[in-house]
Amino acid sequence: MSVETLSTVHAHGGVQGVYRHTSTSTKTPMEFSVFVPPHEAGAKLPVVWYLSGLTCSQANVTEKGEFRAACAELGLIFIAPDTSPRGDAVPDDPDGSYDFGLGAGFYVNATKGPFVEHYNMRDYIETELPALIAETFPSADMSRQSIMGHSMGGHGALTIGLRSPEQYRAVSAFAPIVAPIEVPWGQKALLGYLGEDRTSWAEYDACALIRAGARLPDILIDQGEADTFLDEQLKSHLFQKSCDYAGQSLTLRMQAGYDHSYYFVSTFMADHLAWHAERLKA
Amino acid sequence: MSVETLSTVHAHGGVQGVYRHTSTSTKTPMEFSVFVPPHEAGAKLPVVWYLSGLTCSQANVTEKGEFRAACAELGLIFIAPDTSPRGDAVPDDPDGSYDFGLGAGFYVNATKGPFVEHYNMRDYIETELPALIAETFPSADMSRQSIMGHSMGGHGALTIGLRSPEQYRAVSAFAPIVAPIEVPWGQKALLGYLGEDRTSWAEYDACALIRAGARLPDILIDQGEADTFLDEQLKSHLFQKSCDYAGQSLTLRMQAGYDHSYYFVSTFMADHLAWHAERLKA
Repeated sequence: MSVETLSTVHAHGGVQGVYRHTSTSTKTPMEFSVFVPPHEAGAKLPVVWYLSGLTCSQANVTEKGEFRAACAELGLIFIAPDTSPRGDAVPDDPDGSYDFGLGAGFYVNATKGPFVEHYNMRDYIETELPALIAETFPSADMSRQSIMGHSMGGHGALTIGLRSPEQYRAVSAFAPIVAPIEVPWGQKALLGYLGEDRTSWAEYDACALIRAGARLPDILIDQGEADTFLDEQLKSHLFQKSCDYAGQSLTLRMQAGYDHSYYFVSTFMADHLAWHAERLKA
Repeated sequence: MSVETLSTVHAHGGVQGVYRHTSTSTKTPMEFSVFVPPHEAGAKLPVVWYLSGLTCSQANVTEKGEFRAACAELGLIFIAPDTSPRGDAVPDDPDGSYDFGLGAGFYVNATKGPFVEHYNMRDYIETELPALIAETFPSADMSRQSIMGHSMGGHGALTIGLRSPEQYRAVSAFAPIVAPIEVPWGQKALLGYLGEDRTSWAEYDACALIRAGARLPDILIDQGEADTFLDEQLKSHLFQKSCDYAGQSLTLRMQAGYDHSYYFVSTFMADHLAWHAERLKA
């Protein structure tokens, strides 16, 4: 596996890099960003995965996420992958919408139609990219990983974390899609990537996973009350209900006045990173 | 004077807004951003001006500057104006370059050619916009202002601050142009906006202002050693020399490994804001 360095820059005492490699999961070049905080030579540092939302690439959180100061203070490596395969060969939504296809991989392995070949973001995030990070970044302690995400990426973090609690010590989300089976964004994506057999959808729905018995030590979610997607697409109360019913520990913080943007994410980023760091201690 | 609100969003407990008004200085609509931190009703808060660099609008620092957490903690209002007049009626560099014309107002009042009508960024920043802020934001304590900037905006902050020490309690800069009379960016701008009489250039050159007797209590500058513009355009050692010769207090911190980007600015932003806050105490 070979990784091309697109850029590295000093920031907050560490190094913010952007990298490209050819993915075996998506059969495309993929870009991701990694922040490595200042550290002693030979030190091993925990790794926080950040999954982004619809329309985003790695660049949105890398530029606007305000995570570096906290990662430098807490000694965390921060990794931001892309949200879908990219390129002219990759099929997109024929309607050109923002919520399916390019920039909208939904962290699934597609099983339907023209999407099967490239749209394997689940394998990419869960398996391929961690192996690449372990090989490429000697300071990354892959025995101490955690995962967070925003919106579609919050859905990704919750579902990936719930399916593999042994791989991630902490799972949190900003304004996640918690019940894709029940909402328009999720229904379009799951139907499009997986087809009409809804039994195959359940492993990509955080509420369904909880109902099916998946558990994490605890979960942290921040959700803006002024988020215009809350009522139709996010429905965080459904996750609260699933967790309450199942006895899953959940800290769901409804944040008055906050919307769905990176102004919201960046406000609570340092909080989430401190929460992760506490759970990532050696 | 009327101000149109383009957007407001909750961030770090305060409100980040973007506004538009028609400027009498530039005779164009102008956009600026203001962050008002959380505060008690009726409180009066100090105001920090941030002047941006070549090619930037208010948006660059607003999205990537990482100033809100510190401003919320320190109780500072943060204002980011645009870098030039905008619009089809505004003359640009005939060559379409990035370093003159639109996005490159250099914080001067133009006295030459087609630029006289609109390129009056000095009046705009020193006089018109402070009056507008005083009228529009009742929490702004205009008796406690300070100014900082990046690159061309560092030049703006230094020259404006040196000319009006009674208006600004603190002046700092990230990678500023300190001697525009001596470097290609500055020579092009000053010749283009002011004409060939170099005596008129001196009030727009921080080194020349120091040599002519301008003084501030102290000045803070951070400069990346890996900044590719350092040797040809920024030449921070010339400012050190001018300050040493004149007995002007200067803290010039050469930062190993850092470049000219917002990854550099955001790294040292909280430091600068704390330094300003100390000098803006009631």
